[in-house]
Amino acid sequence: MNVLLVYAHPEPKSLNGALRDFSLERLRRAGHEVQVSDLYAMRWKASVDAADFLGRDANEPLNVSAASKHAYATATQAADVAAEQKKLLQADALILQFPMWWFSMPAILKGWVDRVYAYGFAYGVGEHSRQKWGERYGEGTFRGKRAMLTVTVGGWAEHYSGRGINGRMEDLLFPINHGVLHYPGFDVLPSYVIYQTGWLDESRYQQTLVELGARLDALWETDPIPYRTQNGGDYDIPSCELKPGLSAHRSGFDIHLARE
Amino acid sequence: MNVLLVYAHPEPKSLNGALRDFSLERLRRAGHEVQVSDLYAMRWKASVDAADFLGRDANEPLNVSAASKHAYATATQAADVAAEQKKLLQADALILQFPMWWFSMPAILKGWVDRVYAYGFAYGVGEHSRQKWGERYGEGTFRGKRAMLTVTVGGWAEHYSGRGINGRMEDLLFPINHGVLHYPGFDVLPSYVIYQTGWLDESRYQQTLVELGARLDALWETDPIPYRTQNGGDYDIPSCELKPGLSAHRSGFDIHLARE
Repeated sequence: MNVLLVYAHPEPKSLNGALRDFSLERLRRAGHEVQVSDLYAMRWKASVDAADFLGRDANEPLNVSAASKHAYATATQAADVAAEQKKLLQADALILQFPMWWFSMPAILKGWVDRVYAYGFAYGVGEHSRQKWGERYGEGTFRGKRAMLTVTVGGWAEHYSGRGINGRMEDLLFPINHGVLHYPGFDVLPSYVIYQTGWLDESRYQQTLVELGARLDALWETDPIPYRTQNGGDYDIPSCELKPGLSAHRSGFDIHLARE
Repeated sequence: MNVLLVYAHPEPKSLNGALRDFSLERLRRAGHEVQVSDLYAMRWKASVDAADFLGRDANEPLNVSAASKHAYATATQAADVAAEQKKLLQADALILQFPMWWFSMPAILKGWVDRVYAYGFAYGVGEHSRQKWGERYGEGTFRGKRAMLTVTVGGWAEHYSGRGINGRMEDLLFPINHGVLHYPGFDVLPSYVIYQTGWLDESRYQQTLVELGARLDALWETDPIPYRTQNGGDYDIPSCELKPGLSAHRSGFDIHLARE
């Protein structure tokens, strides 16, 4: 299979650098083709701006989604953006690896999403009418592909537990797992999260490699997070609200899981 | 009072540009001093990297939090970072204005947070021991200051409602309101969110100005979101888990609200 690892850390001689190298080797030894987008090494441009859209009339005000739609449709996107899209299309699985900074991804990775996820590619896909609100959340360009986050966290696991002050980790990652990955069609695997990375002794580091290795080995067998699909009958269209009675005993983001 | 408006949109001739100008004028007419950090106009550098830390030994691997701590303590931070910190210290209120992209802020604004929120300034503040886990969540450098998000959203309000497929807007904004603003001490006001911005006719635009104007007029009177404080007795220390019995009838991020 073909795996794309998008990696966002500024220092190769770091825990993140070691886990990236470990992941690459593990996947390659298992016979997979692996491509890496090392965003810092690539000096990835993080901010969407007018320069991303090569064919537009510079005298017109920039409307980002309209410019994105036009550039994607006419193959006038910035070359770095088009190259990442090609990698995504080739990949059977996507891994985003990053340190959690301020409860989300580093800016450079957010900028990869903002720029690579063009209109017509990752959103604005399929019919949009009062009968159908696009192909998204389980449908779309990446349908049938798998995705997983590998996240390093400085804080304690307890601080991210169900009653932890930072909020539950699964909920903090929902905007990424559900909004960035499930939205354009990926099957999203449970994230692999390593906590308290400033206090990682050799024994916990070795344990991390065992766990992460097992997760990579099972990339094609692991059950995805059972997010509901938009067009599978669970949501009213076009309001996209969950139908009455579904997830009656759940609340928060968990209502979007297809299990009672 | 002194207000800092941090603004992240690439096009001045846009809804966001109009709302920024409206906000500035409204606040200035009310007698407030307003500073603006227009991140695109400033060509704000979004990605944290070794160049942010002027005094460090380039032969050593970059440890971001250690480098941030040292640079902040020794006044060897990048000049643009130090300038934003000064604006924050001068401000009585902070407004972050941005279009929601992929369920979070644009990369350029995330990069403002990642770079300006130094160790010793926005985190790593106060005693960290088994008896006290720092001054955060209601304490810290910005204690006594207020903050609010102004967010434009392309999608429908229904899609972001309590049962909307995108997730409830308040929950999607929790990592920012709670994690980026409450964490270093701000009192966080309810966000002002405008939906379906691609279909904003004149009547709804005028309504938006009325609503946003009222929110700005009431910046000092509006009740903040009642997030619990870390050190107010509601959380066990050092696990930072909410004490048993509190928020017994709530779930999700709402357990961190100090009301039953």
